[in-house]
Amino acid sequence: MSPDSAQFSLPHVVILGAGFGGMNAAFKLRHAQCRVTIIDRSNHHLFQPLLYQVATAGLSPGEIAAPIRHILRGKNIEVLMAEVQGVDTEKKRVLLEANRTVEYDYLIVATGSRHSYFGHNEWEEFAPGLKSIADATKIRKQLLCAYEEAELETDANRRTELLTVVIIGAGPTGVEMAGSIAELAKKGLHREFQNFNPERTRVILIEAGSRVLAPFPESLSESAAKELQTLGVEIRVNSRVQSVTNNEVSLDGEHIRAATIIWAAGVQASRAAKWLNVDTNDKAGRVPVDKFLNIAGHPEIFVIGDTALALDKDGKPLPGVAPVAIQQGKYVGKRITGMLQGKAQDKAFHYFDKGLLAAIGRTYAVAHVGKLKISGWPAWLVWVFVHIAYLIGFRNRVLVLTEWAWAYTTYQRGVRLIVEQKE
Amino acid sequence: MSPDSAQFSLPHVVILGAGFGGMNAAFKLRHAQCRVTIIDRSNHHLFQPLLYQVATAGLSPGEIAAPIRHILRGKNIEVLMAEVQGVDTEKKRVLLEANRTVEYDYLIVATGSRHSYFGHNEWEEFAPGLKSIADATKIRKQLLCAYEEAELETDANRRTELLTVVIIGAGPTGVEMAGSIAELAKKGLHREFQNFNPERTRVILIEAGSRVLAPFPESLSESAAKELQTLGVEIRVNSRVQSVTNNEVSLDGEHIRAATIIWAAGVQASRAAKWLNVDTNDKAGRVPVDKFLNIAGHPEIFVIGDTALALDKDGKPLPGVAPVAIQQGKYVGKRITGMLQGKAQDKAFHYFDKGLLAAIGRTYAVAHVGKLKISGWPAWLVWVFVHIAYLIGFRNRVLVLTEWAWAYTTYQRGVRLIVEQKE
Repeated sequence: MSPDSAQFSLPHVVILGAGFGGMNAAFKLRHAQCRVTIIDRSNHHLFQPLLYQVATAGLSPGEIAAPIRHILRGKNIEVLMAEVQGVDTEKKRVLLEANRTVEYDYLIVATGSRHSYFGHNEWEEFAPGLKSIADATKIRKQLLCAYEEAELETDANRRTELLTVVIIGAGPTGVEMAGSIAELAKKGLHREFQNFNPERTRVILIEAGSRVLAPFPESLSESAAKELQTLGVEIRVNSRVQSVTNNEVSLDGEHIRAATIIWAAGVQASRAAKWLNVDTNDKAGRVPVDKFLNIAGHPEIFVIGDTALALDKDGKPLPGVAPVAIQQGKYVGKRITGMLQGKAQDKAFHYFDKGLLAAIGRTYAVAHVGKLKISGWPAWLVWVFVHIAYLIGFRNRVLVLTEWAWAYTTYQRGVRLIVEQKE
Repeated sequence: MSPDSAQFSLPHVVILGAGFGGMNAAFKLRHAQCRVTIIDRSNHHLFQPLLYQVATAGLSPGEIAAPIRHILRGKNIEVLMAEVQGVDTEKKRVLLEANRTVEYDYLIVATGSRHSYFGHNEWEEFAPGLKSIADATKIRKQLLCAYEEAELETDANRRTELLTVVIIGAGPTGVEMAGSIAELAKKGLHREFQNFNPERTRVILIEAGSRVLAPFPESLSESAAKELQTLGVEIRVNSRVQSVTNNEVSLDGEHIRAATIIWAAGVQASRAAKWLNVDTNDKAGRVPVDKFLNIAGHPEIFVIGDTALALDKDGKPLPGVAPVAIQQGKYVGKRITGMLQGKAQDKAFHYFDKGLLAAIGRTYAVAHVGKLKISGWPAWLVWVFVHIAYLIGFRNRVLVLTEWAWAYTTYQRGVRLIVEQKE
């Protein structure tokens, strides 16, 4: 759609999705001999590892998200905000709403994942998940409104219900949310309520597996669980959710009443398999890709990040984490650059595992890097360093650091806004 | 509703509304011999003079709003988030939703104003006004989505429509919005679009009266108009809006197509007159008050700020601006403190006029203080100083200044988020 018609002779690379994968691919392609178009349903790139902090009123949306076209300004990359409807792999074009189409020579599909309710989509209404800024502000609103209602409430049982938060799923997101909410209740709301003590908040973390932070080594799971308990979080492992209704979670033989229920239990790939007409046996709906991240029979189509089912050298699927998406994005960007130059491209994608990190509250983290297992505040320093380093294209990093230092030490909660007024 | 029963013997002061009036009254009462409850429909106090900057993606909501209970924490003031349904002046109690009631000995009504469409409420859907954070983010979304659509659009007429913004009403809010949007288009979006130049944005400011900034002296109106024109704003004075429909504003003999239409033309007081069962002949629905800011026959009920119709010593109504609300809030807080001490209270409210200020873009303002009339960047420095000085109870002022300096010089637009995804 570029008005510069001279450019039309150049090959066109279309990127679907401006998450970590798509953005890194775009960066690598900015000097290549091609036109680049990146399409996303929202106007911003999101630093997803910190999204739980928006949901728990620790950071405001503007601190972890920035307009895609602002990050890519002046890079000669076309940015379109549009919802993808499908892909015509024969005619090589992407279908958008209103019968708009975008033709491509190379296609990079990096449309991520959504939460999955394992066939119980009716639970979503009562237990929202966390993938977008809109999800995060919805959870934040629910959490904050429960406290507001509790201040008005005179019935003791209902107040207990209002002060109970259930988080389903104890992977990194669930653990980080639980820690953050427990700290908000213990410290962030200090002296703000007259009719109850916010420290009475119950945070219950439910996990179907046998331990929290399953992808981590067992010793770190134990450290994390201990720290969560210190913050007052109740952990229920080996607990399978039977049903979720309005303000109630049912486990085997137990019903927990809670005004805030948050889903952090599972994810499902975007609908890319359907768009590309690819058969997938994967439970999470990911698209199988070869060692070059192509789908079968289409060397011009790449699938990366959470949407892709890529295998490591042992034949195990790569995890749906940011470093995988980042490295795959860079790889594909470089690969297409080479293809455009007519160079032989036989280098397969190789994932370099940088390790795993999870923060629990404001001073504690667990880190698993190579053979190193660390926990406590040294791991937390690593966590801070890594997160700052990867805040690509966002606001001035020094400024962000200052703001965070301020927010962390003072618990200033300018971010604790309930935007929509009560109906 | 305080659990501390010993406190129940103290007189109860109930404040409705946590704007400038209500908050200042609360501050003055924090050491008085009484219980204080402040009730607001939202959970935050809003620094309304900067709200237009949220609507035009210059600041994010968290920078100009803070939770009421955070500002008042530790002050022994009960904060309730609830919608007022009415007041029973006989039984001295406020009626909330769900049949909740709050009894009072003294009542301060400071519930502000909403925009008024002069009997054309059907225009609101197409031309939103600006009073709350939700209003501002709605306008911001509309404005930003128009640019996103323009990048996708191939039809030239529709693109022109998408790049046209109409602002109805050239009082301080309308003028500040127009300047801010013109600057966003000229500088803030630089190099971000491939398929059109955002500098092509038309900003049209419509005013029924004969000049912009009517409350200011004529010479300053002229300076402001000139500066707006330099920024590219088209000004239509003596233009009365005949109708507003989807994407169209009709004036006498002219129809302007515009994707973004903003209402800044008039305000109407909250429904307090109805709650208090007071007759008011005022067109804006304000509640008439005496020199002590009481309603007739009720020395225990005060009405202040935009909701009140208070007269100055010449018998002219005081304007609906922040300084009036602030001074009235302080006055009433002091007056009640004195009444509680049993002292004679014969000092009437006197408004000290500190002048008028309006900013046009990032380096220009007009100021009218006493006999002084200044325009240009000296007035802009006054504007910055006054706004920082009055940011009560918000985040650290030094930090806010740093952030602003950063945002102003770089046009970093982390705040330019469209939160809801397209349906």
